[in-house]
Amino acid sequence: MTNTRTVELEGHIIDSGMMQQAFGIVMDMGGEFDVEQFDVGKQKDKTSYCRMAVTADDEKKLQEILHELHQIGANLTDPVDAHVEPSPADQVVPIGFYSTTNHPTEVRYDGEWLSVEDIEMDCAIVVDPDAEDGPRAYTKVLNSVDEGDLIVTDEAGIRVKPPERPRDSSGPFGFMQGGVSSERPSESLIGEVADALRETKEEGGNVLVVAGPALIHSGGGDALAELIREGYIDMISAGNGFATHDIERGLYGTSLGMDMETMEHPRKGHKHHIYTISEVIRAGGIEAAVEEGLIKEGVMYECVKNDVSYVLAGSIRDDGPLPDTITDAIEAQNAIREQAHKADMVLMLSTLLHSVAVGNCLPSTAKTVCVDINPATVTQLLDRGSSQAIGMVTDIGTFVPTLAEKVLEGSDE
Amino acid sequence: MTNTRTVELEGHIIDSGMMQQAFGIVMDMGGEFDVEQFDVGKQKDKTSYCRMAVTADDEKKLQEILHELHQIGANLTDPVDAHVEPSPADQVVPIGFYSTTNHPTEVRYDGEWLSVEDIEMDCAIVVDPDAEDGPRAYTKVLNSVDEGDLIVTDEAGIRVKPPERPRDSSGPFGFMQGGVSSERPSESLIGEVADALRETKEEGGNVLVVAGPALIHSGGGDALAELIREGYIDMISAGNGFATHDIERGLYGTSLGMDMETMEHPRKGHKHHIYTISEVIRAGGIEAAVEEGLIKEGVMYECVKNDVSYVLAGSIRDDGPLPDTITDAIEAQNAIREQAHKADMVLMLSTLLHSVAVGNCLPSTAKTVCVDINPATVTQLLDRGSSQAIGMVTDIGTFVPTLAEKVLEGSDE
Amino acid sequence: MTNTRTVELEGHIIDSGMMQQAFGIVMDMGGEFDVEQFDVGKQKDKTSYCRMAVTADDEKKLQEILHELHQIGANLTDPVDAHVEPSPADQVVPIGFYSTTNHPTEVRYDGEWLSVEDIEMDCAIVVDPDAEDGPRAYTKVLNSVDEGDLIVTDEAGIRVKPPERPRDSSGPFGFMQGGVSSERPSESLIGEVADALRETKEEGGNVLVVAGPALIHSGGGDALAELIREGYIDMISAGNGFATHDIERGLYGTSLGMDMETMEHPRKGHKHHIYTISEVIRAGGIEAAVEEGLIKEGVMYECVKNDVSYVLAGSIRDDGPLPDTITDAIEAQNAIREQAHKADMVLMLSTLLHSVAVGNCLPSTAKTVCVDINPATVTQLLDRGSSQAIGMVTDIGTFVPTLAEKVLEGSDE
Amino acid sequence: MTNTRTVELEGHIIDSGMMQQAFGIVMDMGGEFDVEQFDVGKQKDKTSYCRMAVTADDEKKLQEILHELHQIGANLTDPVDAHVEPSPADQVVPIGFYSTTNHPTEVRYDGEWLSVEDIEMDCAIVVDPDAEDGPRAYTKVLNSVDEGDLIVTDEAGIRVKPPERPRDSSGPFGFMQGGVSSERPSESLIGEVADALRETKEEGGNVLVVAGPALIHSGGGDALAELIREGYIDMISAGNGFATHDIERGLYGTSLGMDMETMEHPRKGHKHHIYTISEVIRAGGIEAAVEEGLIKEGVMYECVKNDVSYVLAGSIRDDGPLPDTITDAIEAQNAIREQAHKADMVLMLSTLLHSVAVGNCLPSTAKTVCVDINPATVTQLLDRGSSQAIGMVTDIGTFVPTLAEKVLEGSDE
Repeated sequence: MTNTRTVELEGHIIDSGMMQQAFGIVMDMGGEFDVEQFDVGKQKDKTSYCRMAVTADDEKKLQEILHELHQIGANLTDPVDAHVEPSPADQVVPIGFYSTTNHPTEVRYDGEWLSVEDIEMDCAIVVDPDAEDGPRAYTKVLNSVDEGDLIVTDEAGIRVKPPERPRDSSGPFGFMQGGVSSERPSESLIGEVADALRETKEEGGNVLVVAGPALIHSGGGDALAELIREGYIDMISAGNGFATHDIERGLYGTSLGMDMETMEHPRKGHKHHIYTISEVIRAGGIEAAVEEGLIKEGVMYECVKNDVSYVLAGSIRDDGPLPDTITDAIEAQNAIREQAHKADMVLMLSTLLHSVAVGNCLPSTAKTVCVDINPATVTQLLDRGSSQAIGMVTDIGTFVPTLAEKVLEGSDE
Repeated sequence: MTNTRTVELEGHIIDSGMMQQAFGIVMDMGGEFDVEQFDVGKQKDKTSYCRMAVTADDEKKLQEILHELHQIGANLTDPVDAHVEPSPADQVVPIGFYSTTNHPTEVRYDGEWLSVEDIEMDCAIVVDPDAEDGPRAYTKVLNSVDEGDLIVTDEAGIRVKPPERPRDSSGPFGFMQGGVSSERPSESLIGEVADALRETKEEGGNVLVVAGPALIHSGGGDALAELIREGYIDMISAGNGFATHDIERGLYGTSLGMDMETMEHPRKGHKHHIYTISEVIRAGGIEAAVEEGLIKEGVMYECVKNDVSYVLAGSIRDDGPLPDTITDAIEAQNAIREQAHKADMVLMLSTLLHSVAVGNCLPSTAKTVCVDINPATVTQLLDRGSSQAIGMVTDIGTFVPTLAEKVLEGSDE
Repeated sequence: MTNTRTVELEGHIIDSGMMQQAFGIVMDMGGEFDVEQFDVGKQKDKTSYCRMAVTADDEKKLQEILHELHQIGANLTDPVDAHVEPSPADQVVPIGFYSTTNHPTEVRYDGEWLSVEDIEMDCAIVVDPDAEDGPRAYTKVLNSVDEGDLIVTDEAGIRVKPPERPRDSSGPFGFMQGGVSSERPSESLIGEVADALRETKEEGGNVLVVAGPALIHSGGGDALAELIREGYIDMISAGNGFATHDIERGLYGTSLGMDMETMEHPRKGHKHHIYTISEVIRAGGIEAAVEEGLIKEGVMYECVKNDVSYVLAGSIRDDGPLPDTITDAIEAQNAIREQAHKADMVLMLSTLLHSVAVGNCLPSTAKTVCVDINPATVTQLLDRGSSQAIGMVTDIGTFVPTLAEKVLEGSDE
Repeated sequence: MTNTRTVELEGHIIDSGMMQQAFGIVMDMGGEFDVEQFDVGKQKDKTSYCRMAVTADDEKKLQEILHELHQIGANLTDPVDAHVEPSPADQVVPIGFYSTTNHPTEVRYDGEWLSVEDIEMDCAIVVDPDAEDGPRAYTKVLNSVDEGDLIVTDEAGIRVKPPERPRDSSGPFGFMQGGVSSERPSESLIGEVADALRETKEEGGNVLVVAGPALIHSGGGDALAELIREGYIDMISAGNGFATHDIERGLYGTSLGMDMETMEHPRKGHKHHIYTISEVIRAGGIEAAVEEGLIKEGVMYECVKNDVSYVLAGSIRDDGPLPDTITDAIEAQNAIREQAHKADMVLMLSTLLHSVAVGNCLPSTAKTVCVDINPATVTQLLDRGSSQAIGMVTDIGTFVPTLAEKVLEGSDE
């Protein structure tokens, strides 16, 4: 008897896949369901509603099932408050803490539903009952949990709202589309990305570009610099390597020792690379190097000149690094988190490491474009579950110039 | 008014994904739906039922939507006979011919539902009203269509039954699982494949192995030969390259010129390869070469000795070829089709070309295991839509020996 | 004493890598060398010469070493005639037959050095002493060897001339460069390919395009059609799938069911695909279909209109096939061989199967460009050992339009 | 006149490829060479010697050529001292600083050749004339350069000794072999790695394992734990993810939420993952968690119990992280550097990030084995230029258990 709980789902739950997932979870995990009410949305603009009892052999199994159901938006019907428990120590969560999804989430506290601020996946939810303007709920990553923080545990009193399938054809931004194909007409697809980028800017949105060093090697630097200069990019998230290659190219015309124009002398020596970092250190950083005229062109130059904020996150692969590089991983994550929370559209351009780091901080509602020559990278990034995502397996060295051309053409219309 | 038709879906249509797809198709293609009846299966063993009207702006658009709905099992309610039209010429289908899915299909002819024989995808359905035991319906690929064949056109009078999600956890054989991950415990997963292989044989089923030359180069030949010798494999589908490398290895201990034991001297010369083919031609074929003692071991040897049928399909990449190779693509497809129609379980081992050819002829009910080091190959093969499929991104050179070990161990239990 | 033979190497044997390989082969295979004479080319235009005795423990080992040395241009000094032996039966080579490299080769017959005609790898050399204009030597693949053909055996009396490193920087066409990187500036590299294509045509050379269906799916069809119309392409080597997708796109605006402009409705149905083939069969073939106005645009249309010869080689994956498809693998290879022997420059565009088939027939002197999104495909194709090859890991859907643009721009200069 | 310098090469310079590279560099970079003396090693144990004058149009070009020649062991003949210049500021190198290769290197100071300590690539060389036991030369990465350090500039007075090709067949450890193939007999190759591992331990060498989280997901954890327990591994270099997955598996039997035995419920929730980190933080770190009995098995457990040192380097992808994780990239590099300098054999197991970081610190003389399912990763790692390296494209989940079996079997012999 006690091993039964009732959950409900509401919205476009059939075509957004929640019902299929909900039944699947119960069956996969060895439980039973009993649908108590099911009202189908008869036309496409009508929502559906399902209330069902879920049963399992023991309470532990039931809790596991409810945990999974919860993640996809099947919420407990009981109108109870969420459980909260104080954190026993810094960076330690209480037993049974609630781990967030990346979907919009509400927590019931003192009879009221609080919207969870800064939602991102794999966080704890902290409730602050004594906030200035009334109780607040917000996410905290493990490393910023403080002793005594009131942490939500269990699934009761929490409502998750996964994104729903748009009511019309979603165009190139596939809804929750995990797979990716290289067999789509590339130029048309880039055109759709260009349209989305322009629309985002027209609507006053923020565009974040996450970029890997391959963007520079493969010759996409000038086009990205132009997009920044023309005001289409608001933030850059990259690493020490990206910035160094970009600056090296401006200083020496090479990237990793290869002459970018003639493609001659692709030698192994990284001397230019190291010397570039040394010179920027001497100048006191990228901004200072732009000001003293050492850096005269390129992506980083345009960032400085156009007040585009950049985060350079360090890695154990780095040479140098540049003084602007944030070498501490936690600090770098915090800087990335701030960018991610502001972004309305994110272009992830040929970097798995930085794209995953940014993706970890994004809500499922952010518009995402993932571009890489390696299909496994694109699949892994789309798998995060953005509700509006395009994956393209293509060459960053032709993608960025083509994108820039289409964006700038379109802007004259 | 006329641009509306009514379709119905029945079965485990929520958790098998048909409802989600049906709504999605209508919305994606610009139509409207109106659910007239919806009975949800309240528990997991109860089926659901949906009847809905589908509307589009014009008849052409409506037909396109109905065509897509049809493919996923949303069948027209109208109890009419299927339309048939005679083929105007050999290898030519009438306008609007019905192109099959790989799901179990029925055709209504003269008031009765005929089960379509030898279902496979992308075929025409031919109705033979004058067959000995009453009317029959069966598939024909384009190249075997004869002038005058009665070919089914349109979607009316046809019922498709896509496979449904099993009622319990499906284990490693994922239900309609398009994606694939290399991050699963490999040895446990191979154990599950071994179990499935033994079960198939215990139930009297037929096992078809589709094998590429990499199986031999990477050292999996002995293990496959052992599985054949022990009676676990009923049919082999491969190419001229596979057979030649296998025989070369027996004759010279090399594969593509590399000594398989010492791995020394990996030279480019294909002399052994060509000479192997020449010798088998001299002997008069593989069977003759086994009989005269030229071939003394290996996969092909065990096939001959254990009456395991093999199809060697030719390709434009081939050296030689061996006299057993079927060089005509149509003839080879027919031989492959015959194998595929007999198979209850199919192991696709590191060959995209032959696996696609076999997969084209398989119904969606066949149990399939796809193994390749290249994730793109595994994804493409799983994408065919078998209802019970395992995809593994792993090394064929460790997979086959481990599989053989686990199969043979398990058989002693 | 008898287990020693003397070989010599001549030319730019140090910087072309022959000396390194020669010493390596002897050491790897357990032999000894004794350099009897070594004259180094003191400046870059001077050739070097090496004569060395090679010794092994037994005659069999020595023969194996000499065989490998031979392949890289270390020829026996003894000025003897080549051994020839009559083929014992059709498609059967004598024991110890000489298997060709893809390098220019001469055979000594009756005291004279004959240049081997139509050199390609893995063939037998047939000597015809009674040819009209004096003795001839030419290659034969195994399946065209006739009983009684005089086949060269052993390595004596044969000279191989591997291509030498060009005396100046080789530009983007790397010399014998096996590896490939996606980290090169894509647009500049495409510019270099465009230059090479224009130069080849200006010098009266023949350009062969080997194309896979992905070229059409990814939107490169129009650009290729334009290059054909403008006279830059002389021959197309493809398969049934390529031609069908190209024609389907002209007929329905779709490829594999996807609308190429809007990218909407990417459904699984292959109905258009099958119907396209059926219609071309009805018309009597591609040329007839162009003439009767069924096919009005696209790559195949331009081939017919501009007298560009095409070979469509069949495969076991094919639907249909189109009547123009050569379904027999041997016949198809012969047609491909004829194309390959005429080609001065070959563009291999996103097809492994057809590119390998063409590559098998090319001499090492043919200029080759391999483009694929999959690095493994590019590596495998470059590995064939063309002396002038570019490998690009890029998106065919942006490559072909960019190439066409750069070729046509450049032609106005 | 002044634009000529003389260099010399000595050793097995033909078969180790130095001569080919040297001529190639001069020609590629537009210079001229004039060989003044060339003494070939007549037999395989005899070394060769080459002295040649190199000329370029201007001094800058000549310096560039000499720089490249230098990297491959062509050293200036002039018996001069190396130039040293004080570093102008912390982390800043003088103009024209000498950037190291990963080959053994000597610097001439005050008439004497000093062996450069702790050689690794892309470093500066610092000369300390006042060291206790006489002048020393050692490498410094950019970030540890101090103002006033005497830094070597130019190429004069420096000798580089790239590794030479072993005199006999090198077995599976290819000499400077950049490419990699998945078409080798996997089990035999793993046997050779096992032999090398046992030999290294028998000779008293240190084995460093660099491991990624896929090792745990794919089921290789138990086998690696066993190798540690049996004393075959001396150091582990990994990240926060690897350690957390390993510990999570011990605590919950899951890795990333998947049950490792039944492979059931592969859900997305990372709750176990986060809670694992939280618990280790509560305990005070991995060692403390082992001591208090929280961690009872697995790789990290065996490391603690068997005094195997581990470095967990942080990354911006990390959850948590565990308290043992070094979050600062520079600190982490320093810890990795210390491991790398002690290692005689390195196994790089399915992690690109950590393997590159370790590889950056290795001399070219370290024995390296790179294993990954992704061929691009293996190629990139081998490209670093270890003189003794094996690359395997295989499944880590079958590789590690097979390796452990073969190592432990062999140890009974």
